[in-house]
Amino acid sequence: MTRVLTRDVIEQALSGIDLLPLMEAGFAAYSEGRCNIPPVGELMLEKGEVHIKYGCITGGRYYVVKVASGFYGNPALGLASSNGLMLVFDQATGALETVLLDEGMLTDVRTAVAGAVAARYLAPRHVEHIGVIGTGMQARLQLQYLMPIVACRKLIACGRTPQHLEAYRRDMEALGFDVQTTDDPAVVGARCQLIVTTTPATAPLLLSEHIRPGTHISAFGSDTPHKQELASGVLARASRIVVDSLAQCRLRGEVHQALKAGVITEERIEEIGDLVLGRRPARTDDDGITVFDSTGLAVQDVQIATAVTQAAVTA
Amino acid sequence: MTRVLTRDVIEQALSGIDLLPLMEAGFAAYSEGRCNIPPVGELMLEKGEVHIKYGCITGGRYYVVKVASGFYGNPALGLASSNGLMLVFDQATGALETVLLDEGMLTDVRTAVAGAVAARYLAPRHVEHIGVIGTGMQARLQLQYLMPIVACRKLIACGRTPQHLEAYRRDMEALGFDVQTTDDPAVVGARCQLIVTTTPATAPLLLSEHIRPGTHISAFGSDTPHKQELASGVLARASRIVVDSLAQCRLRGEVHQALKAGVITEERIEEIGDLVLGRRPARTDDDGITVFDSTGLAVQDVQIATAVTQAAVTA
Repeated sequence: MTRVLTRDVIEQALSGIDLLPLMEAGFAAYSEGRCNIPPVGELMLEKGEVHIKYGCITGGRYYVVKVASGFYGNPALGLASSNGLMLVFDQATGALETVLLDEGMLTDVRTAVAGAVAARYLAPRHVEHIGVIGTGMQARLQLQYLMPIVACRKLIACGRTPQHLEAYRRDMEALGFDVQTTDDPAVVGARCQLIVTTTPATAPLLLSEHIRPGTHISAFGSDTPHKQELASGVLARASRIVVDSLAQCRLRGEVHQALKAGVITEERIEEIGDLVLGRRPARTDDDGITVFDSTGLAVQDVQIATAVTQAAVTA
Repeated sequence: MTRVLTRDVIEQALSGIDLLPLMEAGFAAYSEGRCNIPPVGELMLEKGEVHIKYGCITGGRYYVVKVASGFYGNPALGLASSNGLMLVFDQATGALETVLLDEGMLTDVRTAVAGAVAARYLAPRHVEHIGVIGTGMQARLQLQYLMPIVACRKLIACGRTPQHLEAYRRDMEALGFDVQTTDDPAVVGARCQLIVTTTPATAPLLLSEHIRPGTHISAFGSDTPHKQELASGVLARASRIVVDSLAQCRLRGEVHQALKAGVITEERIEEIGDLVLGRRPARTDDDGITVFDSTGLAVQDVQIATAVTQAAVTA
C-alpha cells in the first residue's frame, strides 16, 4: 500500500537524519559507477521549467523519481518558485512505496547538503568571511548546513532587491551570523574565502577579476544549459574544478559553459565522489582557487528520499 | 493543496467520462504541433523497466508526468506486472494539483481507447472475426473499448498459456463475445479482419504470410526499441502504416523495427491525429492491409489524467 507523506511529516523525519554522510555515500556510489541514472528529463513551459531526475543505486532497495519545478513568477503571486515531489519505488517489483509531498523542500535540502560536502573537502583553512550571492531559500539552507563544517560566522550577503536582502540578513543573524550586505558581487569576491552562489542568473555575476587567491566557490544556481553565475574565466583560472557528475556537467551548469567557451578541458574536471573516496585529494594548498559546480544529481534524491522513507517507517 | 486520488475513486470518476473523443482530441493536438512532449524517460532495472512520459498541450491548464513500470516476474509473486501513477501539475505555477494512484490502470485504459480510435478510422467494413493476441489486462480492455466501435462479436483469442487463455475466454464471453481459442498466431491471421496484439514479445508473432488482404492490425505490445510483435514484412506489405507519433515510433515499436530493417521508409508513415483531423483519409478500400503502431503517447496521459482530475473535482 502506497504511503503519502506530507511536508510536516517529512520535516519531522528529516530532523533525525544525519544527511552529510548520506550525501557523501551517494556521491561515492555515483563516482564508483554503482548508480543507474539516465539523463535528466526536462519540460520547458511558458512560465517555468520542470526537471525530472530519476534513478537508483544498483542493487539498492528503491528507485526514486523526482519532479522539481522552478516558476520564477511565483513569488509575485505569493508562491514559492520551486515545487515538486519525490516518488519512492521498490526496485524488485515497481510498487510505489512512498509519495513524498515535500513541495520541493527535499531538493532544497539535498542541494544545501552538497554545499557542506564541497566545503568539507575544498574550503580553505582560513575563512574570514563566507559570501553568499542570492537571498532565497537555498541561500538560507546553505548557511544552515555549512555551520557544522566551517567555523566562520562572518557573512557577506549579496542580493539585488533590498527588502529580500534585509530579510535574509535578519534570518542569518538569527542563525548566529554577523552579516554585512552588498548588492555588488565584486565585494563578495574581494572579501570572502568561501563563496556560495544560489541565483537563477543567466549571465555571469562573478568575474575572474573579482576572485582572490585562496578562495573556494560553490555554484548551485545553474542546473540547465542556459543558466550561468560564474564567468568562464573563473573556471579557467581555478586550480581545481570539481563537479557532482561529469556526465551531467558536460550538458548543464558552469562547467558546460566553460567547456563551450573552450577555456577548460574535460581532463581537468574531478568528481566530488572521488574526493569522498580518497581517490583524489581534498584541498592541498592555501592559495588555490577551487570551484564546485553542482547541477543536482538523482543519487542525492535517492539518498534523501530513501532515508526519509525509512525514518518515517520507524516513526 | 494536493489531492491524492486512489484507484477506486479514479475508477468511479472514469465511469462518467467519454474517453474516445478525448483521445481523438489528444492525437489531433499532437499532430497539429500543439503539444510539448519531450522524449520518453527510461530506467532499465534488473527485474523490470520504467517509462516516464510527460508533457502538456501548450496553453492547456495542466502538465502531466506519468510513471509506468513493467516487472514481468511480478505475476509469479501474485502481483500485476504493470504499475504506475500519474501526476497532474498546474502549467501556470508548477503546483501539484492531483496525484492519481491508479496503479497503472489509466495507462491501460488510455492505451485501449487508442485501439478504439484506430479501429474507427482503419477497421475494414466487414469484420467477421476480431483476433486478439495476448491474454492480459490490455487484451481485455481492448475488447471492452472496441465494442461501441465494431459490431462484430466473434473473437479468436490467441495465447500460449492454456489457463490464461481459458480465463480470458470466460471474461470475454461474459462481455458478450463468441470466443474461439488458439495458440497459433497464424490462425488469427487467417481468419480475422481486425487484429489486436498486446504481448511483450521480443520476436515477431505475426508474419507477413499469416495476413490476408482486408485486414487491420493494431499493435500495442511494443513500446521499446527491443520489443516486437509484427514481422517487418507485415509493415512492408501494408498499404497504410499509421502511428501515434512519428517522432516516437522512429525510436521504439514496430515501425522502429521495420525502419531499422530497411523495409519501409518514413514517407509512408502517417499519424493517427492526421486521420482524426481529416488531413488524411480513413480506410478507403476493403482489401488493403493497414497497421496501427502504438507506442503510447504522453498526450494520452495528459488527456485521461486531466479528465479524471476534473471529473473528481465536480464529484
